[in-house]
Amino acid sequence: MSLRHPPEQIRIQLGARSYPILLGEGLLGAPDSWQELLPDASAALIVSNTTVAPLYADALRQELSGRFRSIDLIELPDGEQYKNWETLNRIFDRLIGMHGDRSTVLFALGGGVVGDMTGFAAASYMRGIPFVQVPTTLLAQVDSSVGGKTGINHPRGKNMIGAFYQPHLVLCDLATLQTLPDRELSAGLAEIIKYGPIYDLAFFDWVEANIDRLTARDPAALAHAVKRSCEIKAEVVGLDEREGGVRAILNFGHTFGHAIEAGLGYGKWLHGEAVGCGMVMAARLSAEVCGLDAGFVRRVEELIRRAGLPVRGPALEVDRYLELMRSDKKAQAGEIRFVMVDRPGSAVTRTAPEDVVRQVIADCRIAEVA
Amino acid sequence: MSLRHPPEQIRIQLGARSYPILLGEGLLGAPDSWQELLPDASAALIVSNTTVAPLYADALRQELSGRFRSIDLIELPDGEQYKNWETLNRIFDRLIGMHGDRSTVLFALGGGVVGDMTGFAAASYMRGIPFVQVPTTLLAQVDSSVGGKTGINHPRGKNMIGAFYQPHLVLCDLATLQTLPDRELSAGLAEIIKYGPIYDLAFFDWVEANIDRLTARDPAALAHAVKRSCEIKAEVVGLDEREGGVRAILNFGHTFGHAIEAGLGYGKWLHGEAVGCGMVMAARLSAEVCGLDAGFVRRVEELIRRAGLPVRGPALEVDRYLELMRSDKKAQAGEIRFVMVDRPGSAVTRTAPEDVVRQVIADCRIAEVA
Repeated sequence: MSLRHPPEQIRIQLGARSYPILLGEGLLGAPDSWQELLPDASAALIVSNTTVAPLYADALRQELSGRFRSIDLIELPDGEQYKNWETLNRIFDRLIGMHGDRSTVLFALGGGVVGDMTGFAAASYMRGIPFVQVPTTLLAQVDSSVGGKTGINHPRGKNMIGAFYQPHLVLCDLATLQTLPDRELSAGLAEIIKYGPIYDLAFFDWVEANIDRLTARDPAALAHAVKRSCEIKAEVVGLDEREGGVRAILNFGHTFGHAIEAGLGYGKWLHGEAVGCGMVMAARLSAEVCGLDAGFVRRVEELIRRAGLPVRGPALEVDRYLELMRSDKKAQAGEIRFVMVDRPGSAVTRTAPEDVVRQVIADCRIAEVA
Repeated sequence: MSLRHPPEQIRIQLGARSYPILLGEGLLGAPDSWQELLPDASAALIVSNTTVAPLYADALRQELSGRFRSIDLIELPDGEQYKNWETLNRIFDRLIGMHGDRSTVLFALGGGVVGDMTGFAAASYMRGIPFVQVPTTLLAQVDSSVGGKTGINHPRGKNMIGAFYQPHLVLCDLATLQTLPDRELSAGLAEIIKYGPIYDLAFFDWVEANIDRLTARDPAALAHAVKRSCEIKAEVVGLDEREGGVRAILNFGHTFGHAIEAGLGYGKWLHGEAVGCGMVMAARLSAEVCGLDAGFVRRVEELIRRAGLPVRGPALEVDRYLELMRSDKKAQAGEIRFVMVDRPGSAVTRTAPEDVVRQVIADCRIAEVA
């Protein structure tokens, strides 16, 4: 089977670790459009979860069957709470059980959790084997496909253990987004919304004008949003592969967001939901600390709301928010650094007076139950 | 305190990941010779074990005290059998407990096990923090200081999980070798002996002429042997950082050696002992397959014996040796590739007929108890 339109290709330029992202409607049904990009290998292991595997694993397995001597599948439990050492070790056990060697290819078929764990397994098994990402959620397509971040959570911190490790190829089949639950679609929109305020005001305007098409899953709108998000992320990551400087702006909303996720226990709110609410807090902080225009702050908040995302944080103590943010891995010597929008389409990283941070959290949080 | 002689410096050239190895007698008592090479950081964690920490941790801690805001120490249990996820996780727990961030520096104070685990912890914690190696065994000084191999064992395979990750600095204090047990000294000599047959015939001649000085721990002889071994390894690794090609020759004796270690259970034989015996087997296989001169094979075997190393393998079934070698991570699609000396001072990687491999193992093994 072939595609009506040839897939779009975004090239991630990272020297010897460069790779392509292919983007198209129905890619999983059109192996001729991407099979030549696979690495030479004799065995493949598809890593997926119990939600996604029943939908797409058979299709992927069938397409790979002409190319690999053996194709195994491992189904992990679904959810952020399983992004831990025990689940990762199931991938290692399976690789060893199938006599996986350095030419064995891992395929990550699923969302961010599957992608992060599969990527870290690929980075660590025998100190590195190739992997291919097949992200099936909007969040994973716009976020995990670029940046090389892989890892697992530690009971006391999100993504505390991991590696920077680049895939060999990323396949974004936009058709998989049609089976996504509404909540996960909204979570993905959070990361798409993020790129505008920090980097590209024109894209912010476009997302604002097209938010209803996006929530209605209009294929053309989703295609543009995914493509432009990947391009922006690729530009920023290309400048700073290992997160020493400018790349930090991609964490807009994430410092607050991680505190929300950790405070509630991972998996209660989706990552994108926490980031959505975190961006509202970060935008307000930007107004207080950097003088960002209040009208723009309102536009950001309204767009997040229209995307179906929470704009108010959970009723945790303000002290608890601060404690969690101080143990975030982007804090340095206990000092919290926030990504703030200094003017629409541009971001900086800086500290903020504690009383201002406290006030912003208090204003953005759901009142505690009396 | 300063050194009688300034330390020797070997520069490992790996582009942005280049680093120096400092080599000298009494380096740990002479901070002025290396402190300026440390990364800028506020907190340090010294990772050591219950054998080495009582000997050297106080000295290291004292020297670092002027430079770091806080210095923590974690003592791991001593032995290859603890090179696993549980022990690694103790390092992560401690890092999180001390609010370690991306500027925190890990110091690996000990032998290869401490170095491998600390390096992997540094590679994985927050996706990468700096680490300094302070190897206190001969094996670690000549082997782990160059190459960036870090990792842990899996119940079913040695070093199956890990990363290529370079240290910021390596400090080899030759004085620490004086407290080393004889067995560990011999184990280190195995890796020193290795470099001659595969790469540098003149160095083989030198080691052969000086083996008694080395086993008697003559400081000048040890200094030359460590320096030349690091230089050779650096040359080979510089050509092939991620072990795609020529670097494989460094695994001379290791395919047989890993089978011995895994077959007996890790920790029963030291790694260097298994490699010593493995080199005897590999040299004999080289004679059968590549026509290596029988006189040279005898010289290799005799040198290994004089270094205090076993030249006969344990009485495992020949089938078991083969099974273990097939699951070695250097095997490809179940095909075992051996490093063989094609002529003195030069090595190649190739397969061998199974019946020849079986015969070599049977000839080199201690007869089974009747």
